[in-house]
Amino acid sequence: MKKHIVVIAGDGIGQEVTAVGKQVLNRIAEKFGHEFTYDEALIGHVAIEATGNPLPAETIAKSKASDAILFGAVGHPKYDNDPSAKVRPEQGLLGIRKALGLYANLRPIKLFDELLQASSIKPEFLKGADILFFRELTGDVYFGERGRKDEGSTAYDTMIYSRYEVERIAVKAFEAAMTRRKKVCSVDKANVLESSRLWREVVQEVAKRYPDVEVEHQFIDAAAMLLIKDPRRFDVVVTGNLFGDILTDEASQIAGSMGMLASASVGDSTGLYEPIHGSAHDITGKGVANPLASVLSAALMLDISFGLKEEAEAVVNAVDQVLKAGYRTRDIADSNTPADKVLGTQAMGEQLL
Amino acid sequence: MKKHIVVIAGDGIGQEVTAVGKQVLNRIAEKFGHEFTYDEALIGHVAIEATGNPLPAETIAKSKASDAILFGAVGHPKYDNDPSAKVRPEQGLLGIRKALGLYANLRPIKLFDELLQASSIKPEFLKGADILFFRELTGDVYFGERGRKDEGSTAYDTMIYSRYEVERIAVKAFEAAMTRRKKVCSVDKANVLESSRLWREVVQEVAKRYPDVEVEHQFIDAAAMLLIKDPRRFDVVVTGNLFGDILTDEASQIAGSMGMLASASVGDSTGLYEPIHGSAHDITGKGVANPLASVLSAALMLDISFGLKEEAEAVVNAVDQVLKAGYRTRDIADSNTPADKVLGTQAMGEQLL
Ligand SMILES: CC(C)[C@H](C(=O)O)[C@@H](O)C(=O)O
Ligand SMILES: CC(C)[C@H](C(=O)O)[C@@H](O)C(=O)O
Repeated sequence: MKKHIVVIAGDGIGQEVTAVGKQVLNRIAEKFGHEFTYDEALIGHVAIEATGNPLPAETIAKSKASDAILFGAVGHPKYDNDPSAKVRPEQGLLGIRKALGLYANLRPIKLFDELLQASSIKPEFLKGADILFFRELTGDVYFGERGRKDEGSTAYDTMIYSRYEVERIAVKAFEAAMTRRKKVCSVDKANVLESSRLWREVVQEVAKRYPDVEVEHQFIDAAAMLLIKDPRRFDVVVTGNLFGDILTDEASQIAGSMGMLASASVGDSTGLYEPIHGSAHDITGKGVANPLASVLSAALMLDISFGLKEEAEAVVNAVDQVLKAGYRTRDIADSNTPADKVLGTQAMGEQLL
Repeated sequence: MKKHIVVIAGDGIGQEVTAVGKQVLNRIAEKFGHEFTYDEALIGHVAIEATGNPLPAETIAKSKASDAILFGAVGHPKYDNDPSAKVRPEQGLLGIRKALGLYANLRPIKLFDELLQASSIKPEFLKGADILFFRELTGDVYFGERGRKDEGSTAYDTMIYSRYEVERIAVKAFEAAMTRRKKVCSVDKANVLESSRLWREVVQEVAKRYPDVEVEHQFIDAAAMLLIKDPRRFDVVVTGNLFGDILTDEASQIAGSMGMLASASVGDSTGLYEPIHGSAHDITGKGVANPLASVLSAALMLDISFGLKEEAEAVVNAVDQVLKAGYRTRDIADSNTPADKVLGTQAMGEQLL
C-alpha cells in the first residue's frame, strides 16, 4: 500500500515524540511491504516564529493533499502568561481541525495491564476499564463568537451547537457502541445550558435508531465524579468539545499517564492523529517525554485511515511487549521500576523497533 | 446568641438530610446557650408543584430577612429527560444565588482520616490532602444570555465575565490563602477562551497585591487531571462557575464521597449553606442518604455566618467521633464495615447527637 503522511510535529515535546511515531511507521512499512512517504509542515509557536502565522496556508494545503496527518502538540508558556496576545499557537490546532472538518475526536482509554500500578487510582477500580470517548471537535465554545465589550472590562465566548453537528457525532458514537459493549453515555449540562438541551434532544432522537444500545445521560459534574469513582461503568462516552477536553484529560489517570493516550480526529477528509498530551515545555529537550502516545496515535492511523488492522495490532503488541519487559518512561515508572529500565524518549523508541 | 435560620430543603434527599442538619443546629444551640429560630421556604420541584414557580417571591423575602440559610438540593428526573421544559427546578437555585448576590461558593475538600479507604484513589495520594475551592457563583455561562435560533435548530449560551466579578472572588481566594498554606491555583481555559483571558489578567493583577502567595495558573483540562494525579499539590483553588462545578464534584472522590462535602455560598448578604450533592432521586425516601454533608454545611454556617468557631468545631468533632466509632452510611462504607455499623440517615443523625 502506498500512503503519503504529513508530519506536523509542532511545539515542545511534539518534535521528540512524533520522531518516534514516524520511526515506528517506517518499521511497519518495511515489515509489511508498504510504502509510506512523508512531508513536514509547521504549526503553532514554531510556525509563528517562522512565518508569523500559527497555521500557514501551506500546512493546510499539504494536509489536504495527504492520506493522513501525524500530529505532535502546540502551545508555549510565553502566550499562556500573556492573556492579551492576539496570535497564539492554539489557533493553529483549532484552525486545522476546522479547515479539515475533523469533527469527531476519538480518544480510547485503555489500561495496559502492566501499568495497573502506575495510576493514583486503586487497581481494583481500573482493571478492565475500557472507554472510547467521542469528543465533538469543531463546535461549542471553541468556535462561537467571542470578544470584549464595555471598554474591555467584560469578555464573552459563545457556546453554540446546531442539530447537524450533534447528530453526526452521536451517530459515530452509537455506531461504535454497536461494535463494543453497546452502551453510550452522553454528557452535557442540560439542567442549565440551552446548548446542552439541544444536545440531549438530538442524542435522544439518534438513540431511537439504535434500540439495542443502552443510553444514559449524565451531567458533566456527575460524569467527572463517576469517571474516577467507577471507570468501568463506561463504554462509549459522547460529549461536546469543552466537556470532552476536560473529561479525557481527567481519564488519562485511568490509563496511568497522559503519555499513554492517543487520539484520532476524523471527519470530512484526511484524518489527524495526535497524542492527548500537550507541548509540555517543562520537559522539552530533556529527552524524557513518553513517545507511546504518538506511537499509539500512529497505530490508530494505520487502523482508521488506512484500514491496516494487522499492522495496527502489531504496533499495540510492540508497546505491550516493551511494557511487559519492564521498560518505562519516567511518567509511568513506579518505585518498583529498576533505574536501568527507566528509558528516555529515544531509547524507548529503540526498544519498540 | 439569637439567630434566625431559613431551612430550604428542596427536592429529593434534600428533605432528609437538612432534617438532620437542623437537629444538629438545635443541639448546638442547647449546649452552648444560643437561640436559633427557624422558618421554612420552598424551592425547586416542590415549589413548582405547590406554586408553579421554582423560586416563589416569599422564599426570597424570607431568605433576605434571615441570618442564614440551610439549603438541601434541587432537581427532578422529570425535567432532566425533557429538554424542552421551560420551568425547571434548577432555576430556583440559580435564582436565589443571584437574588442574594452569593458570588463566592466555598467548597472545602478535606478527608477524614477514617475514610482514607473509602475512595477509589490510593490512600498514599490522599493522606493530608486539604483543598479549599472558591467557585464563582453568579456569573459565567450560568447567567449569560442563552436561546435558540435558526428555527430552533441552533442553541447557544454565553460564557461571560466582567473584571469586578473576577476581582472580588480572586480577593476572597487570596485572603483565604494567607490564612492557609499561601498557595493559589487559578483555573481557566485561557488558551482558547476570551472570558478566561480576562479571568487570568485580573487574577494576575490581584496576585500582585499578595506577594507572599505563590500563584499558578492551570488550564481546566490539566487541572481535572492533576486533581486526581496529585491532590496534595493544591491549597486554594479559584475558578469560574462552570469549571468550579466540574472540579468540585470530581474532587468529592478525594473526600471519599460526595455525601461528605459541604459548601458555603457567601457574598453581599445572607449566607447559604448546602451540600455539594444533588437531590439523588434514586435513593430518595429510602432513608439511606448520608446526612454528613448537610451537618458539615451547618458547621460552616456556625463558623462563617455566626462567627461561632467553637460551636463549628464541636460539630466537626462529632462527625469525626462517629466515624472513629466505625459508623458509616452506605456511600462511605467499605468491605470492612460490619453490617450493624452501616446506618441510615436518621440513625446516623442520632449517633451524632
Ligand atoms: C491545546 C488546546 C487548544 C487543545 C484543546 O483544548 O482542544 C488540547 O487541550 C486538546 O485537548 O487537544
Ligand atoms: C443543580 C445545578 C444547577 C448546580 C450547579 O450546577 O451549580 C449543582 O450542580 C451545584 O453544583 O450546586
